[in-house]
Amino acid sequence: MMTRESLNGQRIGFVGLGNMGAPMARHLSAAGASMLVWNRSPGPRRTAESQGMKAVETLPELAAAIGPGVICLNLTTTDVVESVVFGKSGLFEKIDHNAMIIDFGTTSVPSTKSFAQRMTWVDAPVSGGQVGAEAATLSIMAGGSESAFQRALPILCTVGKRVTHLGPSGSGQVTKLANQLIVAQTIDAVAQALRLAELSGVDPAAARQAMLGGFADSRILDLHGDRMVRRDFVAGGRAEWQLKDVRLIVEQAAAVGLRSPTLDNSLDQWEELVVTRSCGDLDHSGLFTLYE
Amino acid sequence: MMTRESLNGQRIGFVGLGNMGAPMARHLSAAGASMLVWNRSPGPRRTAESQGMKAVETLPELAAAIGPGVICLNLTTTDVVESVVFGKSGLFEKIDHNAMIIDFGTTSVPSTKSFAQRMTWVDAPVSGGQVGAEAATLSIMAGGSESAFQRALPILCTVGKRVTHLGPSGSGQVTKLANQLIVAQTIDAVAQALRLAELSGVDPAAARQAMLGGFADSRILDLHGDRMVRRDFVAGGRAEWQLKDVRLIVEQAAAVGLRSPTLDNSLDQWEELVVTRSCGDLDHSGLFTLYE
Repeated sequence: MMTRESLNGQRIGFVGLGNMGAPMARHLSAAGASMLVWNRSPGPRRTAESQGMKAVETLPELAAAIGPGVICLNLTTTDVVESVVFGKSGLFEKIDHNAMIIDFGTTSVPSTKSFAQRMTWVDAPVSGGQVGAEAATLSIMAGGSESAFQRALPILCTVGKRVTHLGPSGSGQVTKLANQLIVAQTIDAVAQALRLAELSGVDPAAARQAMLGGFADSRILDLHGDRMVRRDFVAGGRAEWQLKDVRLIVEQAAAVGLRSPTLDNSLDQWEELVVTRSCGDLDHSGLFTLYE
Repeated sequence: MMTRESLNGQRIGFVGLGNMGAPMARHLSAAGASMLVWNRSPGPRRTAESQGMKAVETLPELAAAIGPGVICLNLTTTDVVESVVFGKSGLFEKIDHNAMIIDFGTTSVPSTKSFAQRMTWVDAPVSGGQVGAEAATLSIMAGGSESAFQRALPILCTVGKRVTHLGPSGSGQVTKLANQLIVAQTIDAVAQALRLAELSGVDPAAARQAMLGGFADSRILDLHGDRMVRRDFVAGGRAEWQLKDVRLIVEQAAAVGLRSPTLDNSLDQWEELVVTRSCGDLDHSGLFTLYE
């Protein structure tokens, strides 16, 4: 574990100040980094400025100011990552050839491998949700060369608690997909379990309490189970992003020859929620509504 | 939490000294109870005797010796419970009308309700596996009248750590089915995730470590994930008992009108492992082999 002092004076770029990115940038700033931030919409840029960070207007400006430093990304999809770094934004034209990208988002494995052939790139997707981002207790699954990983480590340790280097570029993304597969299917399991209890006349809140600490215990039962019991589906993590991840998982499974009827069913369930029922703006835990 | 002293001198019957029952009976004995035990096969009876418990030869003998006390059951299926208590064994004929049964097994909800109309009955299925039974840290999900639950409580607290009274007879079994639904589906999710990592070139042991502490964290990822990584499928909990539970879940879901394609798929997966591939004697975590 690195200490916060290790970022003193380091100039770090941060692109994407959403639910996850905003608190992560804040932690880097609090650890002494000199933050340069960019976000598509102006609201989060202004909030960052009010917290002592410098917001830039354009991505080439960000690239020029960072020089041979590190730019962190926390964006929504592979397409957005590609367009922000290599697209018409003009960032790639201005980036120093010694600069490094840390991609905290969930980005496709083949795209990550191809990005890493064009510049120094660490894939560092995170797990732990908004709660973990706020508390700087994220699990971080990193891929990239050993030297790039070591260079990223002080930043990774500032925003996360458990940082694992899993291998070359793309390895972090592979592990994040494995993680999301478990998350997507466990949310479904917890939803059915609590609904089964309720329909059978057992208070689902009491059932959840009884199951915590046994073999069914999980972070999902604890946090999302509580949301289901309270019918509180205001989005922390949106269901549409879960579907995006499940689609990436299905792609990756096909690419490596993993056949799974359970995974096919999981895709159907998330498509039913997000596409058929148009509930993509609900929290992940809103999958519960399929069983009502 | 009751203290162990509370069982001093109490005479308790225990029927079924398997992987779970044997350590539970031992904990009751260690807490000062005077244990009378019965098991179908003689091996576990002899082991219990070597640990200071009294083994009886027949079930009517057990019933007569216990009188208006408590008889605990830890048996494999609903049919076995019915046959041991109400069948030709002769136990029911000799049982005192003030005696009480505590059923620690996973028994069908409608059968539990009908047994509870014939005598004082607490359904108290457990979660936590053999590890939890050995350590007396089981989660116990109890159903029955308030007075019966209070009478059972010193025993429940001796073998478990988290004891929850969920409502009238059958409520414990409902909650155990909810628990087993989560267990059955989470094992499947963890199996796919670790295999996806492996086929994608990431060390599954490292992937498991990275995922612990994030949103995918669960008791199943921790314990069964480790078995999968080590390809150690020697049974703690047998896959055939998991299939038995999934069948009970499907029955209960149908009885209360819960429609779930995910549950249908889960039944298919466990039947594939246990019936089609004849691997019912593997540990639960052996579901991993479906993806090899």
